[in-house]
Amino acid sequence: MHRFFVEPGVTADEQVTLEGSLAHQIARVLRLRPGEQITLLDGSGRECVVQLVEVTPRRVCGIVRQTRVSGGEPRLTLTLYQALVPRDKLEVAIQKGTEAGVSTFVPVSCARSVVPRGDVIDERRLERWRRIAREAAEQSRRGRIPHVGGPLPFADALSDAVSRGPVIVAWEAERRRSIRAALTHVLHHGPASGLSVFVGPEGGFSEAEMDQASARGALSASLGPRILRTETVGPIVAALALYEAGELEPSLDGSAPPGS
Amino acid sequence: MHRFFVEPGVTADEQVTLEGSLAHQIARVLRLRPGEQITLLDGSGRECVVQLVEVTPRRVCGIVRQTRVSGGEPRLTLTLYQALVPRDKLEVAIQKGTEAGVSTFVPVSCARSVVPRGDVIDERRLERWRRIAREAAEQSRRGRIPHVGGPLPFADALSDAVSRGPVIVAWEAERRRSIRAALTHVLHHGPASGLSVFVGPEGGFSEAEMDQASARGALSASLGPRILRTETVGPIVAALALYEAGELEPSLDGSAPPGS
Repeated sequence: MHRFFVEPGVTADEQVTLEGSLAHQIARVLRLRPGEQITLLDGSGRECVVQLVEVTPRRVCGIVRQTRVSGGEPRLTLTLYQALVPRDKLEVAIQKGTEAGVSTFVPVSCARSVVPRGDVIDERRLERWRRIAREAAEQSRRGRIPHVGGPLPFADALSDAVSRGPVIVAWEAERRRSIRAALTHVLHHGPASGLSVFVGPEGGFSEAEMDQASARGALSASLGPRILRTETVGPIVAALALYEAGELEPSLDGSAPPGS
Repeated sequence: MHRFFVEPGVTADEQVTLEGSLAHQIARVLRLRPGEQITLLDGSGRECVVQLVEVTPRRVCGIVRQTRVSGGEPRLTLTLYQALVPRDKLEVAIQKGTEAGVSTFVPVSCARSVVPRGDVIDERRLERWRRIAREAAEQSRRGRIPHVGGPLPFADALSDAVSRGPVIVAWEAERRRSIRAALTHVLHHGPASGLSVFVGPEGGFSEAEMDQASARGALSASLGPRILRTETVGPIVAALALYEAGELEPSLDGSAPPGS
């Protein structure tokens, strides 16, 4: 069933009206017909199953058949502090991180961040990142669109993260603490409803950054002997954290899987 | 330290000579100089640290300073049977899967594989996939280049996998067995030196394919309520399997991390 995020007001009544690009997409691109069902998400973590009644490219009307809690939101709130890297890599981190269960992305300017000249982070760039998060959230059956904030300088990002709860820094030079040890410590030895993960740029975090992180109580952790590309780290750590937290269990909501 | 796979004979002697595109890359692209060190891998799982003596674009000479077992190869041999999907997605699966620790890739033709017209899998395509695996192996510090085989029809791939050991099929419609339950079963209840993972196309495996897999003893497993894109599944399952097998522990070989 196709899923779309809409403004909160749209699903307030039993009868739903969709216009603009969403109506166009339903009528012209997906070619859905009256009688078929779609899922609308208002970003609150709840979702409505809507049966289509009228389908035209300008206006789609439907009736809410069911309202339920969206099963796709992890209880563990993951924030990915991703070092600024060339744009295609950052986009992969956001897309795959959303699929894996990240709730908030914060691009971070690090000492070794190499960003091509002219690769300015303006409102248009942020808008693009948000669109990638939104589309990935729809496809992966999330109940909320992950927030894309920042960008922040490293020190500010660290303060921000530390104030919110435990912090793990993925560090390829760590020789003692494994990601398993760090996740076990964070998830099973205290009440953790959130976890922040820092991922460095292609050249890694600087010594000074690691010293700062350590002084603020962040746990540096090794992902093992293989070196992952920067854009691969966030999604994999998110998956490992949710695995360790017991949140990769089968969905019980009975909704039909894609393609079945 | 830069890492390169070379033919087995190259590192047979204490003195090493490199020519052709590798010499060009070292001299012109990376601009390394006499005195600097590189790591050469002959694909056997061992690696040589070589100190450069002479560097020209046509010929690079060096001396083997150290030979050691490469720390980047997992003990658990992972084979990813990846459904044929459009080429960019398959390339992502191979690149990220190599980083995560996959040893062999087998593209699989499935009932719902959607491959664009003209997207022929010929020797040139296989060559491209092998180059992606090789470059990802060099960057991620693997000790061997993952093998890219196939493509095989689903039934043949299943027979191939079953004959080699335990098989897990990532299936978004699974409502009972989690990936954790499947991995725990495979890794902790028997001697498993290898594991095969099947990942379906964008439309999922067909009922008939799942029936065949189940009849042959493959374990279907859910990755949780969020639906990952097909190219994200293999790398994440590989990481989870190595996490569960205790193979994401810090590297102890003391080699310098990149960028430090």
